[in-house]
Amino acid sequence: MTTAEFVHVTYLAHGKPGTDWLKKANGIAVGLTVGSWTDLPAARKDAMQKHLGHVADVKQIGTDPHGLEQAMLTIAYPTINFTPDIPALLTSVFGKLSMDGMIRLVDIELPPTFASRFPGPKFGIDGLREQLNAYDRPLLMSIFKSVIGYDTETLAEHFYQQALGGVDLVKDDEIFFDETYAPFEKRIAACRAAAERAQAETGKFTLYAANLTGPVTEIFEKARRAVDAGASALLLNVLTYGYDVLQRLAEDPRVNVPIMAHPALAGALYPSHQYGISAHVVLGQLMRIAGADIGLYPSAYGSVALERGETLKIAQALTEPNHVLKRAIPVPSAGIHPGLVPYLYRDLGNDQIINAGGGVHGHPGGSAAGGRAFNAAIAAVVNGKTLSEAAETSQEIRTALDLWGNPSETGTEK
Amino acid sequence: MTTAEFVHVTYLAHGKPGTDWLKKANGIAVGLTVGSWTDLPAARKDAMQKHLGHVADVKQIGTDPHGLEQAMLTIAYPTINFTPDIPALLTSVFGKLSMDGMIRLVDIELPPTFASRFPGPKFGIDGLREQLNAYDRPLLMSIFKSVIGYDTETLAEHFYQQALGGVDLVKDDEIFFDETYAPFEKRIAACRAAAERAQAETGKFTLYAANLTGPVTEIFEKARRAVDAGASALLLNVLTYGYDVLQRLAEDPRVNVPIMAHPALAGALYPSHQYGISAHVVLGQLMRIAGADIGLYPSAYGSVALERGETLKIAQALTEPNHVLKRAIPVPSAGIHPGLVPYLYRDLGNDQIINAGGGVHGHPGGSAAGGRAFNAAIAAVVNGKTLSEAAETSQEIRTALDLWGNPSETGTEK
Ligand SMILES: [Mg+2]
Ligand SMILES: [Mg+2]
Repeated sequence: MTTAEFVHVTYLAHGKPGTDWLKKANGIAVGLTVGSWTDLPAARKDAMQKHLGHVADVKQIGTDPHGLEQAMLTIAYPTINFTPDIPALLTSVFGKLSMDGMIRLVDIELPPTFASRFPGPKFGIDGLREQLNAYDRPLLMSIFKSVIGYDTETLAEHFYQQALGGVDLVKDDEIFFDETYAPFEKRIAACRAAAERAQAETGKFTLYAANLTGPVTEIFEKARRAVDAGASALLLNVLTYGYDVLQRLAEDPRVNVPIMAHPALAGALYPSHQYGISAHVVLGQLMRIAGADIGLYPSAYGSVALERGETLKIAQALTEPNHVLKRAIPVPSAGIHPGLVPYLYRDLGNDQIINAGGGVHGHPGGSAAGGRAFNAAIAAVVNGKTLSEAAETSQEIRTALDLWGNPSETGTEK
Repeated sequence: MTTAEFVHVTYLAHGKPGTDWLKKANGIAVGLTVGSWTDLPAARKDAMQKHLGHVADVKQIGTDPHGLEQAMLTIAYPTINFTPDIPALLTSVFGKLSMDGMIRLVDIELPPTFASRFPGPKFGIDGLREQLNAYDRPLLMSIFKSVIGYDTETLAEHFYQQALGGVDLVKDDEIFFDETYAPFEKRIAACRAAAERAQAETGKFTLYAANLTGPVTEIFEKARRAVDAGASALLLNVLTYGYDVLQRLAEDPRVNVPIMAHPALAGALYPSHQYGISAHVVLGQLMRIAGADIGLYPSAYGSVALERGETLKIAQALTEPNHVLKRAIPVPSAGIHPGLVPYLYRDLGNDQIINAGGGVHGHPGGSAAGGRAFNAAIAAVVNGKTLSEAAETSQEIRTALDLWGNPSETGTEK
C-alpha cells in the first residue's frame, strides 16, 4: 500500500478586511477536488476521502496599499486526482481558480514519487557540459541577430562568424516561423557544417538551437527529423505551444539533444502582484519538471529586466538539488554585454549560460570579436580578475567596455 | 501579385510622463519584425521592406492614478512573417514584448486572406443548432456536478438525469483527468446510451462534451477514437494545452463534432489592467480563430464574475460577422441559476448557451427538475414573459426562484 501523496500549491490572495481565510482556503481545497463535501452521503465520503484536498497552511501576511488583506494559502492536492502532466496540474490547481478573485499562484511543490513520473531535463547541466566538454566556467551563447527573410547560406555564414568567436551555443531568434527562405532541416545541416568548419579553426564545437515550430501534430516527427539532419539542440516557445509539447519532446528517446525553453509570452503571466503566476513557477519549476535542459528568462541587468530576487528564484528552481529531476541550466537574458558578466557571475557562478545578441553582434570588431570579448570577460571572473585587468591583454574586451561600460568597476548601481 | 497584408495588434502601454510613444511604437514595429533597420545596407533594405512592421496608430489616452501616461499603440505586422497558427502569432507579437515593461495586448485583427488560413469553428452556431434541431432560443447546458472518483455507470446515470431535464448539452468538469474509474471511450459510449434512453422519453437528444485529455502526442488519435465511440462533442482546456491543439482538432476532418473551449487558466492572463492579454482576445478572438465552436467564459452575474462590458466584448468577438470564420456560440458561465436568465437574454438574445452546474443539480426536485426550471425560464424570456408569469404554470421554476431569487423582478441591482 502506498502512502497518500500531495502536490502543495501556494497562492497569494487579496481580500476585504475581515476575510475568513481558512474558510476561503477550505473552499479551494474541497471545490477543486471533490467539488462539494457536506452534501455527500457518509458511505460516499469513505470512497471520496482519498480524492479530497486539504488546507496545509494559511498565513495572513499584511495589508496592501489599498487596504486589502493579503494571505498566503497552501493547499495539498492528492496526486491521484492528476495525470502526470502540466495541463492536468495547471487546469486543476489554477484553472477555474485563476478567474475567481484576486489570486496569484506563487509556488508548486511536487512530491518525489509524482515528480518522478515527469521527465525533467534529459541532459541537464552535467550532460550539457559533457557535450560541450566545458567545465568549471559559465557557458556562452549568442543569438542570431536577425533571422526573418534571410536564406540558409546567409544564416550559415552568420553562424560561422559566431562560432569563430568561441561561443558554446548559438540560438535562433524565437520569432523565426516562416521557413520559406531557410527550411528547418537544410538550415540545421548548413549550420552544423558551419560549426564543423569553425571547429577546424578553433578546436571547439558550437551547438545550434534551432527554433522548433509548426503544427503540434507534426512537431514531434519534425524534431526527430531535425536530429537525423544533425541538430545539436532545439529551441521551443514553451508557453505558446504548451508545456506538454516540451514534456513529450523530453520523453522522446529519439530527440536526444538538449532542449532550450524560450520564455516568450511569460510576461503575460507573471508581472502583476495580485494575479497570474510567479515567474519562478512559470520559467523555473514548470520548465524543469516538463524537461527543459536550458531555461531562458529576463536577467536583472539588461534591456528587458526582471527584479533581481525573482531572477535568483528562477535560477534556484532550475538548479536546486532534487532527487528525481536533473538540474537545468539558467540563462539570464536580454541586453547582456561583457561589462555585465561580473554581476551575472556574482549571482550564479559557473552554472549558467551567458547569453547575448546585440552584445556580440554590436561589437565594433564584428560578431567573432564580440564572442571573444565575452570569453575574455568569463575567463577573468572565473580567475578572480577584474574586467579592467582582462582588458590589459584583450583588445576585444577593452573595446566592449569602452562601448557599453564596465558598471561593476565604475560604481554604476546594479 | 498579392497586396501586402498586415495583422493589426493594439497594445495598452503605461509609461513615465513625457514618454515618446511614437518612438516606442516604432521600436516595437521594427524590433519584432526585422530586428533593426538603420544598420541595414540599402540593398538589403529593399529585400527586407516586405517583412518590416509599421506603426498604424498611436493615441495617448490619459494618465493613471499613479501619474503614469497611458497610450494605445497599434502595430501592423506583415502576415508573411507568420505561419497561420497561434504560437507564431502570439510569440511574434507578444512573446518578448510581454516581458518588456508595462504593456498589455488588447486587440488582434487578422486580415481576411490570413484569417482564411485558420480553421475557425467547424460547425459554429448554425451547425450546432442543426445538430440539436433547436432554433430561435438560447441553448441549455448542464455540467456534471462532480466527476473525480466516479465510475462509468454512476456518471452515465447522472447524465441520464440531466438529459431527462431537457438540456441540450452536458459537459464534463474540466478537472476530469484521471480516467481510471471511467475510461474515456467507455464513458462516451455509456453517456451516449444514456442520451438515447432519455431521448426515447423526451424526444430530445443531448450532446455530451467529454473532456479530452492526455499527452499531446496521443490527443488527436484519442479524439478520433472518441468520435468512433459515439462522441457528440469534445471539451478542451485550450489554454493549458495550447491554442494549436484546438486548431489541429478543428482542422481534422475526422473530428467531426463540435469543440467546446474551456477558459481554465484564462484568469492568469486577463485581470490586470497593466499587463497580460484582454479577456476578449484570450477567450473570444483567439478561440474563434483556432476553431472553438463553443466558447465558455465567466458571466457578469454569477459566482466567478467578469465585468459586464468585457463579457459583451467576448461574446461579440465570438459572434460578430466575419467573411471567413463561422460564428462561435458564447457560454457565459459559473454560478448561473434560472433567475439570472433574463439578464443573460437581455445581453445576448438567442445566440448563447445558458450553462449551469449547481443551478441544475441544486434544485430541490433534483437535476431533471433543475433542467426543466431552466427550460421554463428560457421559454418565458423568448416569449416576452416574466419569470413570475412562468412560475404560474411551472412548479420547477417557482421552486428555483424561491431558492435562488428572481433579481430582475425584485429590483436587485445587476
Ligand atoms: Mg529574441
Ligand atoms: Mg468546472
